Formats: sequence, structure tokens, C-alpha cells
Amino acid sequence: MPETILLAHGSGGKLAHRLIEENILSDLSNPMLARMDDSAVMEFSGQLAFTTDSYVVSPIFFPGGDIGKLSVCGTTNDLAMSGARPLYLSLSFIIEEGFPLSDLKRILSSIRDTAREAGVQIVTGDTKVVNRGNADKLYINTAGIGRIKQGTNISGANIVPGDKIILSGSIGDHGIAIMSKREGLHFSTDLQSDCAPLCGMVANMIATGADIHALRDPTRGGVATTLNEMSEQSQVRIVIEEERIPVRDEVLGACEMLGFDPLYVANEGKLVAFVPSRDAQRVLDAMRRHPYGARAQVIGEVEQAETPCVVMKTVLGASRLVDMLVGDLLPRIC
Amino acid sequence: MPETILLAHGSGGKLAHRLIEENILSDLSNPMLARMDDSAVMEFSGQLAFTTDSYVVSPIFFPGGDIGKLSVCGTTNDLAMSGARPLYLSLSFIIEEGFPLSDLKRILSSIRDTAREAGVQIVTGDTKVVNRGNADKLYINTAGIGRIKQGTNISGANIVPGDKIILSGSIGDHGIAIMSKREGLHFSTDLQSDCAPLCGMVANMIATGADIHALRDPTRGGVATTLNEMSEQSQVRIVIEEERIPVRDEVLGACEMLGFDPLYVANEGKLVAFVPSRDAQRVLDAMRRHPYGARAQVIGEVEQAETPCVVMKTVLGASRLVDMLVGDLLPRIC
Repeated sequence: MPETILLAHGSGGKLAHRLIEENILSDLSNPMLARMDDSAVMEFSGQLAFTTDSYVVSPIFFPGGDIGKLSVCGTTNDLAMSGARPLYLSLSFIIEEGFPLSDLKRILSSIRDTAREAGVQIVTGDTKVVNRGNADKLYINTAGIGRIKQGTNISGANIVPGDKIILSGSIGDHGIAIMSKREGLHFSTDLQSDCAPLCGMVANMIATGADIHALRDPTRGGVATTLNEMSEQSQVRIVIEEERIPVRDEVLGACEMLGFDPLYVANEGKLVAFVPSRDAQRVLDAMRRHPYGARAQVIGEVEQAETPCVVMKTVLGASRLVDMLVGDLLPRIC
Repeated sequence: MPETILLAHGSGGKLAHRLIEENILSDLSNPMLARMDDSAVMEFSGQLAFTTDSYVVSPIFFPGGDIGKLSVCGTTNDLAMSGARPLYLSLSFIIEEGFPLSDLKRILSSIRDTAREAGVQIVTGDTKVVNRGNADKLYINTAGIGRIKQGTNISGANIVPGDKIILSGSIGDHGIAIMSKREGLHFSTDLQSDCAPLCGMVANMIATGADIHALRDPTRGGVATTLNEMSEQSQVRIVIEEERIPVRDEVLGACEMLGFDPLYVANEGKLVAFVPSRDAQRVLDAMRRHPYGARAQVIGEVEQAETPCVVMKTVLGASRLVDMLVGDLLPRIC
């Protein structure tokens, strides 16, 4: 086996088969994947959640994770935000010719470990190789299938006035970790991406029996953009309090230096939950008992609105409108 | 709306939302997609088939299709080859900054039309934009979910000695159509890619009640590679007859000029079926009644083997071993 990926690895021929058999099947093996038919086949009954994301993050290895871990977390988190337990993933690579095989192996190990933590099986996949210069190292797509327990109805459209808004922890860690690595900035050597599979914590939240109205992970565009989407979906006014939003000192410092607002910086291991006031405390408790929600906070609440919007009460007591991200803060953040 | 795709279109922010609302939702709309939650949600019960492919074909517009049509055909065909009726697709774009919006619209129309023909709904998606030079125009991933009717059991592992092998039509059309367009060759101006959704024809084949053992679409690596995979999976010897394999004159001519063997050239609208001898005629009849199977032929049969292999009886009466593709004939063919 050569030390780098060749065009022939994507040809569907002998090298492609050896790549899959020696590297991918050995790392991710399960009976559905090993069947090697054109589709994976399984029994399913109930409410099915289905989602996809492509991952183009640069650099592919970053503090706290890599593109492989991200591609499992991102898609399983999207399933979890619909209240689904993630079950099956597809995994598709677009690889630039010349990519080191050792890096691919490292990414596959990371995919395997994260899939194990999230409790999902990789059941089907694809590998394409493009000529040098036609991609930047490696892009990954995952699509995911999950099951939603009967009686669960979680949607961005279900938010009502009076709902409390819970944020699971500090914001901006992923975006700033990527940025500091990409730009070779050394102001934040200890900062790691928060990249994590949230389905375990969500399962605990649902298990409280609370009537969770909506969940979402504030990735691209950050908390500000996510809350704007949700205010639109449910036609409500969302009010958050600046002083309750946890931000790490390293993230604040970097944002000040770079001119970013942490509210717009991407997260990959955080969620916002919209919960009726009466259920807020037990959901908050369930989150805080989980390692990924230890710093969870109620950050605001939902009000009636003529026009949907997001408003932040600042530390100084003023109110400012929080708009959706307009331009592009950080390309290739996920 | 600017005339080309900007990095901000992939940011998750306002431009991304406008791109999706004005272009993607308008073309592909259905209630599940319009919900705009992190996952699509639907009821499902029974045997589920799940598959994915990324599409990196170059050029993105080619005689007989484009990357959009291909991305629906390829994935729905993989579902059909498991005997499933395709139901739902995810759709994920990786777009190079500067890509013309008009080209994206053309590709979206083509996705819409092909999805309609295949009877599938696009229910979830994603858009990423990478800097100029980090991709070549546009890459697409689709993942698909289909339902397999109870009692259907089609797999590359089910082939047995005595099975007849049916090929649905002429080989090599897709690969040579792409090649001629890419290289600016004008020897084959009339040749079109065979790119087509095969699920309708497969449904007719299954409806005959025949005991179809295996189906596969010979894409990358062509018929030769596909048959080798299947001989391995079922541990059988596959014998095909050269004179029964339909090849268009334009494809033969181009192959002779370029030094290709049509058996290794990619197809995107063909299938091979393995069927017990007693059922072969009615499956063949069902295929020939469908436009995509009008030139279907029995091209060989399956024998017992000590070592799995594929053998071709040549027009001159000799037998030659047909190996799996080793190198890479045509990169970025799909």
C-alpha cells in the first residue's frame, strides 16, 4: 500500500477495494457495513429523523478534535436536536490526491472512537479521490438516521412565550480554537474546540420527562444566528441576558483582538434548549450532571412578539437587537 | 442576490438563508424540507435501505446530464440495486467560491426533475462554500433511504451456479461521453451519457414475481469490476460471452482510439441482474418493455468455482480472464 492516496484509490478498482478492506472495514466493522452491497439494510419502525452535513474544516487537525470527530459529532448532534437517538451513519470521503495515508488512518480512528461514544454504527460509505489542487486535503460528508421516541415532539417551531432558554456551556470555543490554529496565533494555547457528541446529554434531558419544546446546536453563525432562526420559526421575541452567557477568558481575549463578537462564533459541542418555566430547573439539573453540560445556564426567556427578533440585555443595562450573521466571519469553520 | 456564490453563502448566516429560501426551497419544496429543523422527520416501518455517494464528476455539465442528475440517479440506483424503492434523499453541496449562481440553478432544476422521475423527495440538506481553488466548481453528496418490500432478498452474496446474467443495455456510454467532453474530442458528438434512474425498471422486474438473486449497477470500474466484486461476494465463477454484450459503435471507436476496454468504462444507467434460469425470460421481457432496458441481453451464466473469477468467451472462441480494474482509467467520472 503506497504511503499517500492515489487517484486509483477512488477508481472503484483493486486499490479502492484494498483501501476499504484494510483501513475502513478494519476500523469501523459491523455486519451491515461488511456486507459490501450497494446499500445497508436494516429493520426500522417508528419516527425516523434524517439529516446530513458536509465537513470542510481547515485545518483538519485542531486542538480538541479533527475533521473525523467533527463529522460524527455534527451529524449526530443534528439528530439529537430533533430529539432522536442517533443509530446509523453514512460516511463519504472526497480526498485530494497525495493525501497521507497515515492522516487518513488517524481520522478513521477518531471517527471510530466518536461513533462509539455517540452509540452509532457507520453502515455505508463512499470514497472519491480528486486530482491534486481540486480539493484541500479531505472533505467528509456524513448523513445520519435516528429514532424519535413516541410522544417526543421537539422542533424550532414549538417555542412559546414564557419558555426559558438554557445554554449548555461557554460559547465560541470551537471557532476560536480553529482560528488560533489556522492563523498560528498563540494567545490561546490552552483553548480546545468543544467538539462533542451531545446525544447522551439530550437523552438524559428527555428522560426527565420535561416538555422540551426546542433544541438546537449553535454551530455556524453562533448563538446569535441560531436564536434568530428560532425566533423566525416560532414567531417570537427572544430575550437573553449578556451577563448570564458563559464565555471563556481566552475566547473573550481573542475576540477583542480579532474584532469578533463571541455570539457569532461557532460551537460544536453546545446546545440551546427551550423549556417551559415549570420544567426549566429539572432540565438544567440533568444537563449539569452531564460532563458536556456542567456550565449550563438559563440565559433568557421568550416573549410575545409582533415581529420576531432577538434582544440582548447588556451588562450595562441597555437592550440591543441581535441580528443574524450577515457576512462570513470564519470560512471553513466546520 | 449576487451573481456568483460567495463564501458568506456557506456561513449559516443571512446570505445562506436567502440562497436556500430563494433557490433550493423553491425548487425542491416539500413539507419535510420546509420545516427547516436540524433533521427531517418521517414515519417509517419495515426493511430500510440506506446508502450514500459523493459526486465529483468533471465536467459538471456533460452530454446526457449534469452533476445534479447524476447525484440523484447514482444514489437512487444504489437503493434500487438492493431491491428498495427510493423514498427520501439528503442533498449536500460543497461549492467553490465564485461559482455562477445560474449554474447552481440549472443543477437544482435538474435535481428536481430527476427526483420527480425517481419518485423521491429531497428532505434535508447542507451547503458549504470553500475558498477559490479549494474545490473544482461543485461537489455534491446525496444519501438515500428506501423501503424494501417484505420477502425481497436481493444481494451480491445470493448468486448461485446456474443463474443467468442479464445486462440492461449497451456499456461504456457514460464514461466515453464524459471523456469526449472533457478532452474536447469530437469523434462521438452524438454519444450521450446513459445517466438514468433505474428504480422504475427494477420495480417492474420485481413485480414479475421472479426470484431475483442480485442486482448491481456497473459504475466506476465498469462491468468487469462489478462482476469481479460479485464473483467474490458469492464465491462463484462468472462466464460472459463477448458477442452478447451490447457496445455502441461510437464507444467502441473511442475505446480503440484511447486504448480503453469498454468492459472497464463506467455506466450510470445500466444494471446487471442475476436470475435463476427458469425466471430469466420474464425478467428479460420486463426489462425490454422499459425504455431503460430496451436493449437488455442475457450475457452469460454462473458456474461453480474453486476460486471466484470472471471469464469472457471472446468472439474468436478463446476464453480470457477478466480481472478487476487495477489502476485508474478515468478520474472524476462520477
